[in-house]
Amino acid sequence: MALNITQKLIQSHLLSGEMVPGEEIGLKIDQTLTQDATGTMVMLELEAMGVERAQTEASAQYVDHNIIQVDNKNADDHLFLQSATRRFGLYYSRPGNGVSHPVHMQRLAKPGKTLLGSDSHTCANGCMGMLAMGAGGMDVALAIAGEPIFIKMPKVWGIKLTGELPDWVSAKDIILELLRRHDVKGGVGKVIEYYGPGLKQLSAMDRHVIANMGAELGATGTVFPSDEVIRQFLKEQGREDDWVELKPDRGATYDIEEEINLSELEPLIAKPSSPGNVVPVSEVAGTPIYQSYIGSSANPGFRDFAIAAEIVKGKMVASGVSFDINPTSRQMLTDLVKEGHIASLLQAGARLHQAGCNGCIGMGQAPATGRNSLRTTPRNFPGRSGTQEDSVFLCSPETAAASALKGEITDPRALDMPYPKVKEPKNPTVDTSLLDEPLPYEEAKEVKLHKGPNIASIPPMSPLADEMEIPILLKMGDNISTDEILAGGARVLPYRSNLPEISKFAFEIIDKTYYARAMESAASTGHAVVGGYNYGQGSSREHAALAPRFLGLRVALVKDFARIHWQNLVNFGVLPLTFVNAEDYDQIEQGDVLELTDLRNKIKQSQEFTITVKGKKLSIQVAHALSQRQIEVMLEGGLINLVKERLRKASSFEK
Amino acid sequence: MALNITQKLIQSHLLSGEMVPGEEIGLKIDQTLTQDATGTMVMLELEAMGVERAQTEASAQYVDHNIIQVDNKNADDHLFLQSATRRFGLYYSRPGNGVSHPVHMQRLAKPGKTLLGSDSHTCANGCMGMLAMGAGGMDVALAIAGEPIFIKMPKVWGIKLTGELPDWVSAKDIILELLRRHDVKGGVGKVIEYYGPGLKQLSAMDRHVIANMGAELGATGTVFPSDEVIRQFLKEQGREDDWVELKPDRGATYDIEEEINLSELEPLIAKPSSPGNVVPVSEVAGTPIYQSYIGSSANPGFRDFAIAAEIVKGKMVASGVSFDINPTSRQMLTDLVKEGHIASLLQAGARLHQAGCNGCIGMGQAPATGRNSLRTTPRNFPGRSGTQEDSVFLCSPETAAASALKGEITDPRALDMPYPKVKEPKNPTVDTSLLDEPLPYEEAKEVKLHKGPNIASIPPMSPLADEMEIPILLKMGDNISTDEILAGGARVLPYRSNLPEISKFAFEIIDKTYYARAMESAASTGHAVVGGYNYGQGSSREHAALAPRFLGLRVALVKDFARIHWQNLVNFGVLPLTFVNAEDYDQIEQGDVLELTDLRNKIKQSQEFTITVKGKKLSIQVAHALSQRQIEVMLEGGLINLVKERLRKASSFEK
Repeated sequence: MALNITQKLIQSHLLSGEMVPGEEIGLKIDQTLTQDATGTMVMLELEAMGVERAQTEASAQYVDHNIIQVDNKNADDHLFLQSATRRFGLYYSRPGNGVSHPVHMQRLAKPGKTLLGSDSHTCANGCMGMLAMGAGGMDVALAIAGEPIFIKMPKVWGIKLTGELPDWVSAKDIILELLRRHDVKGGVGKVIEYYGPGLKQLSAMDRHVIANMGAELGATGTVFPSDEVIRQFLKEQGREDDWVELKPDRGATYDIEEEINLSELEPLIAKPSSPGNVVPVSEVAGTPIYQSYIGSSANPGFRDFAIAAEIVKGKMVASGVSFDINPTSRQMLTDLVKEGHIASLLQAGARLHQAGCNGCIGMGQAPATGRNSLRTTPRNFPGRSGTQEDSVFLCSPETAAASALKGEITDPRALDMPYPKVKEPKNPTVDTSLLDEPLPYEEAKEVKLHKGPNIASIPPMSPLADEMEIPILLKMGDNISTDEILAGGARVLPYRSNLPEISKFAFEIIDKTYYARAMESAASTGHAVVGGYNYGQGSSREHAALAPRFLGLRVALVKDFARIHWQNLVNFGVLPLTFVNAEDYDQIEQGDVLELTDLRNKIKQSQEFTITVKGKKLSIQVAHALSQRQIEVMLEGGLINLVKERLRKASSFEK
Repeated sequence: MALNITQKLIQSHLLSGEMVPGEEIGLKIDQTLTQDATGTMVMLELEAMGVERAQTEASAQYVDHNIIQVDNKNADDHLFLQSATRRFGLYYSRPGNGVSHPVHMQRLAKPGKTLLGSDSHTCANGCMGMLAMGAGGMDVALAIAGEPIFIKMPKVWGIKLTGELPDWVSAKDIILELLRRHDVKGGVGKVIEYYGPGLKQLSAMDRHVIANMGAELGATGTVFPSDEVIRQFLKEQGREDDWVELKPDRGATYDIEEEINLSELEPLIAKPSSPGNVVPVSEVAGTPIYQSYIGSSANPGFRDFAIAAEIVKGKMVASGVSFDINPTSRQMLTDLVKEGHIASLLQAGARLHQAGCNGCIGMGQAPATGRNSLRTTPRNFPGRSGTQEDSVFLCSPETAAASALKGEITDPRALDMPYPKVKEPKNPTVDTSLLDEPLPYEEAKEVKLHKGPNIASIPPMSPLADEMEIPILLKMGDNISTDEILAGGARVLPYRSNLPEISKFAFEIIDKTYYARAMESAASTGHAVVGGYNYGQGSSREHAALAPRFLGLRVALVKDFARIHWQNLVNFGVLPLTFVNAEDYDQIEQGDVLELTDLRNKIKQSQEFTITVKGKKLSIQVAHALSQRQIEVMLEGGLINLVKERLRKASSFEK
């Protein structure tokens, strides 16, 4: 059977399941990436599982998110991550080296491999002919430990690129066109695979732009072929040997077929406050702006900065425009400096920032209240910029630069100049010092984890008890979000590496007394919470499961769950139950004590069973939706215990 | 009589008083500078006083402190400052343009002039043959409004520089030598004036280094002659016409005389946690470091970065060292880029930050807990880096660069290389766009102040009442600091432009109920506080007087005051009284009600008078130390009211 590239990548890594869209499949993971905001917990999970050494071909820890150090916490985290990479045999990219996705692409990505990363834009490395996917921290920790990743077999959405990009239109406009057509859920359950004659004019970094924002379509991944363009890219990075060709078989088909004629594209822009809110730039031209922002993993290429530099060269940006330049990496910044582009940008009034994610993830560069910000970043969700009442537009570097000059949103085609031709550097810099190599095992095993005062190991967790009498500490309504379970933001997130501390914020928006009552329960029986429909919607942050678990949460009994939070509860050994009869919800009250008996048998034997409420003549029919694999997880008290036990049992450690 | 330069500067600006050390003198101010952290309140003060237009020759508002925008507040402040400079006729330097002191030096400083700035390192511009002094925000607001500054006539401390700097020793080592000899109070009440043959090898920016850290000696100012070096500097900045020669008269003498033989100096370093804690670098060589930091107004010169670049060129900094480069200004960064130095720094592993103050004032770049940080900045007070348990050393760029390479404190003379010769750029960049020019008055008067949601005007304040019955809301002990009166830090300072909001933090460290009780008093009688010795020690922040005043504080009755807080109380119309008999402190309690009668007459007629405690048979003899000028301030209810009234009375406004 003729396979497309996505199918080839899956087939060559398939450990379990069938390649039928919608079926659960288990895949071998060759490479992982973690960034610092999620990586500290991943490293603590490796520690808690007793992992001796990364089992992947390459795992890299990047420090690109929390590089503004206003107190000891971020700096302490960096040192912890460095020590953990040394201990577990990972690559380490220190703060200032640059954004994970493009640096990974330059230094480690290999066609034909799988990559799992604890960052939703991990899909960007699909540009290299990889199956690259974002996942939760625990999933990545497991992958580092050598476990498979379980996903639903995606549909493959083939997109044929034809024609040729007009002047002033670039890769960003291609992915914005796809978002214009299909909005932010258009890619759910699919891998987007690009092919066709239009590919040849897209550089590896152009493809990175497109693959990166596959995340905004909700896609499982984005795949490009590994062709001469990729070979050339790897050659420039001094890694031509890592190249293998990867293309669809002749006659390969796609579950969905679509075409984009590049010749018909024009400059596009996503209006506030969704990446799917796309219109032609001309439609909003003239809107005054406060900020123009170039950078992020959604426009990381040399040419993305160079084209902006060529556009503003010899001119000055409009008064009152903050023209923020966020270099991708030290390596790329060096080339931009050497080729004169940084001088052009500075002389035009740029604010040149440290290489990293920066304002793209709300770390600095927040716009003034209500003022319009143009960004080449991938997302413009409300408040993501750091400013609550923000107004962020997403566009290409061409549009951002043209608008910076005019002080208002400007279709770059309206500039009175020819479209600049950007020359890639003749001898591009290869900065191998961006990544510290993993230590040899003999050296690594002696490394002690360095923990600053704000970094705490994950405490041991008990297996699922067979009998429980647990009070309901909270009864909540519908649509409780993970932000209510455990808030994000600058007040809470600095404690991301410290479970006992971050737990103090659990459910505090709902009930300030929860923490004290839960701590008390943790020391004795544990406790339950009750909720309505869509419990745990919102952010995927695993702390929202881990923190209540630390505080003694054993059972969450609700009308139904949001998918990712449900999975996180399972992963950390909190039993997620739903009411079989929703009206039972009305029968129980906060303070009631749930009685669960013969529990370990019951969840193995049936998807449904009965629990009772102490002192009330009340039996409640409940259901779980655990697979066999997940039942095993639950019995052990969570994945950490399961993997720990498995590693303990393994007769010998293969480094 | 033969005058030294300091005396000439004072004589040419003397409006009142006699030039006798220790006597109060009033000086005309030609120029002002404000930075953003203090400037927002200065602009609100101008608004509250009803100032129509700056009366100085040049006043400039710089945005260099709060340029990390994690939410709307800093960005909103920037827009407010821009609107205020347009309204009041000031220069505006936008975020990213660079650090106030060197930018002011390049664009506005003029030999022979006076400069007052709401930043303690304003003295740096003394390198240009100016009398440049730091002051509180209100003093600078008054100077902008055309009022004199009142200071005590300083002693003049002549320092003769002889000999020649050895290789690897530079300007920073000269000022560290002075700190080594005299520690952080050695300059109190003095202006330091440099002269002698050693001057000729010190560039204008070298002199800036030395003048800047005069602040660390506690000096009123630092003065250098305006000679050929300064003429050359101004020529390079396209401002040769602004040069006038300024040198001491033949036969001029100094109140104190001292000599530094440059030939005898060696690389020096200030150990944690005081700039006066100076030893030879060799004494601490081998100490491991976490961070090496180049930049700040204490080493702002092109050569300070270029020498570091030459030292690390072609090498890599030690693993685990954060090598932070903080460019002085866009103009200088442009030259460093063009001359290849930025490429050298990046390739050696540097983290290149936005031009500005950054980590020097704890805005980013905080070191890891307990790890050693080497910095070319002026201060290493405990916690100033942002990390509570910090360990900061101050040194030259040579020492910082050598140590970055080795990963430990390193005497740069121990490097196995010749001392690099730095060439200044042949055609240095002159970036006049660093400063937006003041608007013409006709245009300016139409400008509305732009206030984001976190910016609030200063409310009207009442004049001194003649009769008061006011409760004592707090009775405190000795050594109450302004940090206890109104904390600094990231939690409180974001409200610096919002008096009603920042007031919520007043005295909260001492008594959380104060705010509510004070708000109640503000609506009726007002209130008093009682304290012991050294009341109001610590930071000079004027919010510590302004916030309690807003909350109804009318009288502070203590054993004695720290000088600057006392002055701030006077400026904002809070009557500062001391016990004539300290033991009376013991007689009164929190909750007592003080009765003050015929107050306006009493403070005019005598330095001492009697107050009574309601319902107790208790009379207390109290004293004030107000000058005639200050009595007038007090009667009006503070300087804002006084100046407002004066401006109202002025028959016509001269723009």
